[in-house]
Amino acid sequence: MIFAVRTTAGQEKNVAEMLASKVEREKLDVYSILATENLKGYILVEAENRGVVEELVRGAFKVKGIVPGTTSVDELEHLLTPRKLVEDIE
Amino acid sequence: MIFAVRTTAGQEKNVAEMLASKVEREKLDVYSILATENLKGYILVEAENRGVVEELVRGAFKVKGIVPGTTSVDELEHLLTPRKLVEDIE
Repeated sequence: MIFAVRTTAGQEKNVAEMLASKVEREKLDVYSILATENLKGYILVEAENRGVVEELVRGAFKVKGIVPGTTSVDELEHLLTPRKLVEDIE
Repeated sequence: MIFAVRTTAGQEKNVAEMLASKVEREKLDVYSILATENLKGYILVEAENRGVVEELVRGAFKVKGIVPGTTSVDELEHLLTPRKLVEDIE
């Protein structure tokens, strides 16, 4: 299940770095992490369930919360499309 | 431009964490980092150009190299599809 975690804008890679470290340290069931400037103020986390993500972000700096519900891979491509269109034009 | 960086299998999130840290520290033109267990032995890095990625991975542990050429968002969705199909069935 993919979840969108809200972060301070511009801090996406920093937050992803910190959460990746916590995943490894605490052996959390997190399978994927995506941080991209194309998605400002959010990182995407794929985890076994929402509880894992809640544990992951507990007490974390620059994390504002978890978006309700889940995100699909289709939505992800849609979110990344604008930049890709620019690349195609170039 | 999206590049695939080869990593030691199972170390994708660790390598992504380390490279994200380097990006912030050295102010490299890296816009996105994706580490997922659905893509074993690789992480995806979106950067201004290949030279930035070469600089990024220079001297990095558990990095085996950079795949020739670039990766598209379409390819990315294709790579992630098997797991998504499993989720749909579930």
